Amino acid sequence: MNINDLSCLKEIANNVRLAVMPLIGTFESRKVLGRGFGGDRTLLIDEVAENSITKFLEENGLSCIFIGEERGVKKFGEKPTQYMIVDAVDGTTNATRGVSFVSTSLAVSPTNDLGSIEVALVMNLCSGETFEAKKGEGAKFQGKEIKTSETLYLKDAILGIDVSRAPNTVELAVPLMKKARCVRAFGSASLEICHVASGFLDAYVDLRGALRTLDIAAALLIVKEAGGTMTQHNGAGFNGYLLTEMNRFSVIAAANKTLHRDIFTFLAKS
Amino acid sequence: MNINDLSCLKEIANNVRLAVMPLIGTFESRKVLGRGFGGDRTLLIDEVAENSITKFLEENGLSCIFIGEERGVKKFGEKPTQYMIVDAVDGTTNATRGVSFVSTSLAVSPTNDLGSIEVALVMNLCSGETFEAKKGEGAKFQGKEIKTSETLYLKDAILGIDVSRAPNTVELAVPLMKKARCVRAFGSASLEICHVASGFLDAYVDLRGALRTLDIAAALLIVKEAGGTMTQHNGAGFNGYLLTEMNRFSVIAAANKTLHRDIFTFLAKS
Repeated sequence: MNINDLSCLKEIANNVRLAVMPLIGTFESRKVLGRGFGGDRTLLIDEVAENSITKFLEENGLSCIFIGEERGVKKFGEKPTQYMIVDAVDGTTNATRGVSFVSTSLAVSPTNDLGSIEVALVMNLCSGETFEAKKGEGAKFQGKEIKTSETLYLKDAILGIDVSRAPNTVELAVPLMKKARCVRAFGSASLEICHVASGFLDAYVDLRGALRTLDIAAALLIVKEAGGTMTQHNGAGFNGYLLTEMNRFSVIAAANKTLHRDIFTFLAKS
Repeated sequence: MNINDLSCLKEIANNVRLAVMPLIGTFESRKVLGRGFGGDRTLLIDEVAENSITKFLEENGLSCIFIGEERGVKKFGEKPTQYMIVDAVDGTTNATRGVSFVSTSLAVSPTNDLGSIEVALVMNLCSGETFEAKKGEGAKFQGKEIKTSETLYLKDAILGIDVSRAPNTVELAVPLMKKARCVRAFGSASLEICHVASGFLDAYVDLRGALRTLDIAAALLIVKEAGGTMTQHNGAGFNGYLLTEMNRFSVIAAANKTLHRDIFTFLAKS
């Protein structure tokens, strides 16, 4: 078993799901335990989920540099040659309230670079539905190959956008909301970017500067392998950002280059 | 069998689900057939869904004044004594794209008045999960009694809000987006109002003046029976609006009176 096998990542995600399911929508899940490496409050549900992953790594003697929301950077095994970056529960607020849009995000890279992720899996923890990708081999949803949509212009796009907990950045999103055909906000960035990968959405934009490396690592590979384009808000890519460092990003993920350019230029002039 | 039995409504909803499931996320589902009574474009999926309901009424000899998005007002049986108001597919855009947040909304009333709905059921057509209520008997989710949340202030609230397809009204929503704790937009009003009923969300606000009588009829009873407060944006109730007339509303649905007042007064001064 090796963590750069998708079957291994799927087993890990299924383990998270089993651990987390009994907590979805419960008061217990919201218990605050402290503040994690990611800077957010650690709730019981986050802790239980990440714990199920590190326990799996230990029990199966898997070796990696682990980067997680709660534990930060942790070495597993002797001389690890891979990095595994994890958001055990993306959509914690949804999870604690019982909304069925919650994911676990797992990404594996041979080097300490956000641009070099080679294997990625995002699972909806409520439905068990899974998005996955291997570098150069395309992306899949529920085992079937996926492609992004063919929507070319913002005016025709179903746009996912999150403005939660960032009052100062809401105004930045307003022109997009007015221009897009439909606006959605589901509350789990990794899962929403995967929705762009599968064509459920046409684009996902987050201008809060709040998304962390571990939120986007897996979804970045999945949307690119499905044919999408994803950059930072300023057009820059993600190469050169250390996985072991906690950076925060604004992102534009779009179904294709044309739609990405349309959103980017619209934002630049609005 | 009588349409004011919840078991009958559930059978109807299950029928819609069976008819619609094969179309979710397909190109076929988006085929435009014309424009319905509700004023929206009729897509194949809407037609198939509503058709499964009227067929059920006919085959089982059920009697009612039927009000639907596509067919408008139609009499079933001799001397009907009840009104049945239906949105066969709420969240058509989600449905055509494959997003698992789509519902069917069924409400029954003894009189031609939106304020007199007595039985209501909203089913998530993807998961089959069901919200239901009978006047004076409380509301249920998946057969279990539900109560709205105890969140009292907008600043602490998870707020559902839809700004799609209404650029001129986005600015009205901006102060709410800045003030609320979290913002969500799932794309099916009846299901989102039911999410307020179950405590998944704290409030749902729609300021576009776009929600039709048939979008809100079922959810209105369900959220009230769960302890919530729902009014129009100006504080007015829904009594006296004919079910057979196509009115459009802006709404504030909140977990309780205090939260409703907090949102209402905040909107009034912003």
